[in-house]
Amino acid sequence: MAEQLKDPGIGEKFNARSGRVMNRDGTFNVRRSGFDIRRLHLFQYLIRISWMHFFLLLLAGFAIINLLFAFIYLSMGNTGLRTSGDMEAISPFWQCFFFSLHTLTTVGYGNFYPYGYASNAVAGIEAMLGLLGFAVATGMVYGRFSRPTAKMAYSKNALIVPYKGINALMFRMANMRAGLLMEIHADISLTYVEKVGDQFMRRYYGLHLERNDIIYLTLTWTLVHLIDEDSPFYGKSVGELEDMQLEILVKIKGYDEGFGEHIHSRYSYLFEDIVWGAKFVPAFHVDEKGMAVLDYEKISRYDEVELNPFTNTLKKQEALM
Amino acid sequence: MAEQLKDPGIGEKFNARSGRVMNRDGTFNVRRSGFDIRRLHLFQYLIRISWMHFFLLLLAGFAIINLLFAFIYLSMGNTGLRTSGDMEAISPFWQCFFFSLHTLTTVGYGNFYPYGYASNAVAGIEAMLGLLGFAVATGMVYGRFSRPTAKMAYSKNALIVPYKGINALMFRMANMRAGLLMEIHADISLTYVEKVGDQFMRRYYGLHLERNDIIYLTLTWTLVHLIDEDSPFYGKSVGELEDMQLEILVKIKGYDEGFGEHIHSRYSYLFEDIVWGAKFVPAFHVDEKGMAVLDYEKISRYDEVELNPFTNTLKKQEALM
Amino acid sequence: MAEQLKDPGIGEKFNARSGRVMNRDGTFNVRRSGFDIRRLHLFQYLIRISWMHFFLLLLAGFAIINLLFAFIYLSMGNTGLRTSGDMEAISPFWQCFFFSLHTLTTVGYGNFYPYGYASNAVAGIEAMLGLLGFAVATGMVYGRFSRPTAKMAYSKNALIVPYKGINALMFRMANMRAGLLMEIHADISLTYVEKVGDQFMRRYYGLHLERNDIIYLTLTWTLVHLIDEDSPFYGKSVGELEDMQLEILVKIKGYDEGFGEHIHSRYSYLFEDIVWGAKFVPAFHVDEKGMAVLDYEKISRYDEVELNPFTNTLKKQEALM
Amino acid sequence: MAEQLKDPGIGEKFNARSGRVMNRDGTFNVRRSGFDIRRLHLFQYLIRISWMHFFLLLLAGFAIINLLFAFIYLSMGNTGLRTSGDMEAISPFWQCFFFSLHTLTTVGYGNFYPYGYASNAVAGIEAMLGLLGFAVATGMVYGRFSRPTAKMAYSKNALIVPYKGINALMFRMANMRAGLLMEIHADISLTYVEKVGDQFMRRYYGLHLERNDIIYLTLTWTLVHLIDEDSPFYGKSVGELEDMQLEILVKIKGYDEGFGEHIHSRYSYLFEDIVWGAKFVPAFHVDEKGMAVLDYEKISRYDEVELNPFTNTLKKQEALM
Repeated sequence: MAEQLKDPGIGEKFNARSGRVMNRDGTFNVRRSGFDIRRLHLFQYLIRISWMHFFLLLLAGFAIINLLFAFIYLSMGNTGLRTSGDMEAISPFWQCFFFSLHTLTTVGYGNFYPYGYASNAVAGIEAMLGLLGFAVATGMVYGRFSRPTAKMAYSKNALIVPYKGINALMFRMANMRAGLLMEIHADISLTYVEKVGDQFMRRYYGLHLERNDIIYLTLTWTLVHLIDEDSPFYGKSVGELEDMQLEILVKIKGYDEGFGEHIHSRYSYLFEDIVWGAKFVPAFHVDEKGMAVLDYEKISRYDEVELNPFTNTLKKQEALM
Repeated sequence: MAEQLKDPGIGEKFNARSGRVMNRDGTFNVRRSGFDIRRLHLFQYLIRISWMHFFLLLLAGFAIINLLFAFIYLSMGNTGLRTSGDMEAISPFWQCFFFSLHTLTTVGYGNFYPYGYASNAVAGIEAMLGLLGFAVATGMVYGRFSRPTAKMAYSKNALIVPYKGINALMFRMANMRAGLLMEIHADISLTYVEKVGDQFMRRYYGLHLERNDIIYLTLTWTLVHLIDEDSPFYGKSVGELEDMQLEILVKIKGYDEGFGEHIHSRYSYLFEDIVWGAKFVPAFHVDEKGMAVLDYEKISRYDEVELNPFTNTLKKQEALM
Repeated sequence: MAEQLKDPGIGEKFNARSGRVMNRDGTFNVRRSGFDIRRLHLFQYLIRISWMHFFLLLLAGFAIINLLFAFIYLSMGNTGLRTSGDMEAISPFWQCFFFSLHTLTTVGYGNFYPYGYASNAVAGIEAMLGLLGFAVATGMVYGRFSRPTAKMAYSKNALIVPYKGINALMFRMANMRAGLLMEIHADISLTYVEKVGDQFMRRYYGLHLERNDIIYLTLTWTLVHLIDEDSPFYGKSVGELEDMQLEILVKIKGYDEGFGEHIHSRYSYLFEDIVWGAKFVPAFHVDEKGMAVLDYEKISRYDEVELNPFTNTLKKQEALM
Repeated sequence: MAEQLKDPGIGEKFNARSGRVMNRDGTFNVRRSGFDIRRLHLFQYLIRISWMHFFLLLLAGFAIINLLFAFIYLSMGNTGLRTSGDMEAISPFWQCFFFSLHTLTTVGYGNFYPYGYASNAVAGIEAMLGLLGFAVATGMVYGRFSRPTAKMAYSKNALIVPYKGINALMFRMANMRAGLLMEIHADISLTYVEKVGDQFMRRYYGLHLERNDIIYLTLTWTLVHLIDEDSPFYGKSVGELEDMQLEILVKIKGYDEGFGEHIHSRYSYLFEDIVWGAKFVPAFHVDEKGMAVLDYEKISRYDEVELNPFTNTLKKQEALM
């Protein structure tokens, strides 16, 4: 019998039928009620948002700080800024704004310069703030740029394949990044929903793999779960599986030499992603120089095959599995 | 029988009754005698202090270095600085101070500039020092900003819950950060104090959990310690427990995808944090779109329930446990 | 019998005889078909290329951005830039180009300065872009500079050495970096090709070592694989081994105290790198002060010796092994 | 019987009596013969040297680059630099040198500015190089500043202590850094030298500890090796131990919350560091507020005690151990 797991941290009891647990991009279908500023960590926020979003925020912040300092310099009137050369074409406010720009970026051309005590002091503070603020901004730019992220190609479908006299669930994956992936470890679990009274209980099972670890991922890796007596799929009919909001949760971890860091990838297959009776077509060939050539277009490609009969199961008749 | 641990690094023999071992924020009640500059690591100090404290130090350091260089330029008199444009409104000292500001921040407007050999050389040194100094300052700002820190919501109380025919100690937690927590591992230990002659001995026990690891923490995680014959709680009365300065030390470790790093969290429950006969109310529900909604307000909420009778214990009569 | 491994992520079935799996520098003989911009991760690309390549890209990018901004300033004509001092020797286009240089690097001498509204605004944007762009450029320079990389000296040959009454495969290595290597772990596998019908099957075996881990690597480490009944070499003749495109894949992992990070090293031995009947000469001696002196020149040096007879093998007659 | 280890990576056969394996600061007594530029990794070099050494190198590099560019500007004569304001007091060479300073640091006052095409172009290149060069310099400054390093206080002596009816080897340690140390793991080995023919063989043994791991190190940790039948000390007389260049190698690893990284510490005890018949005095007390107070001065302090008789040993008479 397959051994059921306690809730692996996703939640067990639900008041209503829940949707998909994990989305294809690896995010979970969870939100937090209410907004609470104490829960916001600015770094985590800035590293997560899109580049477009990030640059708009940056530009807005830059503009607001410049405006603020422009008004401070403007308020100083005569004792604020002076110009060297003829800058009279620019109105006093914009002179202050552009001077603030020169100071915050530390470009300091000198066509505007601070004249009195106050403006000199404020300009010093602004230059210092500029250095510290740009430290965060440029740190974030590089942090986002160099952030280790996985980019895996998963086969579109999980296949039920005749294998070792019985059948097996298989899906495969390849690394899309150029850096070598090493020490790859896979954790695969199955979850489905069962109605108990007026509550829905989410069940979890670990799916045993023939091999949970590989040393290098240079071509493709086919993950194989044998549907034997220890499998939670064992003895279940296709109809039953369809009804129970089955979801296969995939978690891959590896060391990416390109980043010099570990990366994590997640994926999920639903019932409708399973193909019954198929096997994968090789996704690589050897070229005339003896080099293996991986073709990402072929990752999801399969041929249809006959499944092995399901003996030793209580639901032999109708069961595909 | 529960297996006692040797001192896990906190100290065993005490000359007097000690206070709480770990505070709620995860710091330990330990201090070091005497101050020794060789024990100070500036980076560790600057990463630990509050932002307010950090910025005040930064500002003070910035001011002191500027003052120092201002006096150097001032001491050069005529061969020190020149001004372009009319800066006569500013006194010689402040001219030197503001020029130092322009140099240290590399803003260099040019309204002040170094005139003689010495001032040019000093200004070059100052600009170089400014670049190196701001490297540390801006590095620290970004290091503090991007530093991986855990923010967990722990239930206010640890509950004694009827469970599996006997009773169990349970508490729960949720991640307050937006980044996904993965590969979470919990280490829970119990410590209490025993009087041996005129000394106090601190005893340590590991608390076995039903599950020490979860794969993802998206909603809440309830940690369950079954009070069976292997539990150090077994056969102890409530009065005994109260008397022995019981403390439950919680240590959680996980990989935070938002930071791309492992985070650590600690918490501690005292005797008075334990509620006898209660069970947690779910802290999430499923909304109309099928999405799980976590409500942090409910993390600590529980309902009172009847405990299971404590059979198989020597102190059956008075013992709650 | 030696236990065969499933494909460790390198590929099993081939349509043609493939070449060497791993090159001496640790790269794999794999390429990806087609170019797809979505597979390009700019950071991974910029960290991998040579310094020459990197600097040429940097210079080109720098020149292009400057040209772009130069044309923008030029298009503003009269309301674009002004000069302080006599810069008439420089043509208007180059004035704009040099001004752009001063702005992008934030050096801002002020001999050129923005005059009208538009040029001031564009210069502000350029200075900001310069700071962000140089954040990535300088981040990459330092990232490349500080990147943890292994530099191991492997013995040129793997030797078959008489050992413990039978024979063993041995090779050795030393760390060429000055930083101390600690907690070193070795994973050694054997792969060879077998013809099955019209397909070539690549077989994989883990090679058991006498010792897979060492604590410190200060001198040399000799890795020892005993050719006993559990070895995939057992009972194979030299001729057979030669025919089957034998390849020994070496993977070393360790903590490099100089980088404060884990490093990975890979190497591969082919059939022709194996020497039958030899043993390594010590690669270090103790000097007059009692200090061990490692001589990298001697890492590959060996003396010829007689092998032990191969009893207990079915191919006793012709087999060297 | 104690189980001997194969060489853990330090070397086994020596042509002469070698000195101490590991120094007290954790470095090994090993050097590499010959200097080979290919073995030099600049980052590892710059992170390892002293701050004094580092800053002198930095200053020298800065001076040399400035000199170089100064000569380039000087060689351009009339079409090189111009000055705004009266800089005639400075000789042409130093004008070029100071301009180079202003450019490399991007301070750019504008009292010197590039006049012709060539000088403008060179200044642009210099500013760009300055930004990239300071990226490495400032990166190294911050990298050195924030580098995780252990600072442990080890007891000056290892003690032979009566314990559990027999005797044990004990030493202790405390963390000198303010950041909390967690998940500490100790690896202790014993090495000594034996004369075999005309060669010296170095033997290695792992020393079993009562406890190899602690969760937190807040006060002191006493490491305990029981001298039972499995100990390599078992049945050896003091005279024998003295003669064999005994050395106890200590390796400690832990997660330092202050750095957010793992740290490593090494130490070594020789025969003459062992005290026969002593036990440690507690190095902390509890103050009036119930807080534990650690006193580093007391880490090495011990009281003399009587050892247990050494029964079950072949050398009962003369043996202390």
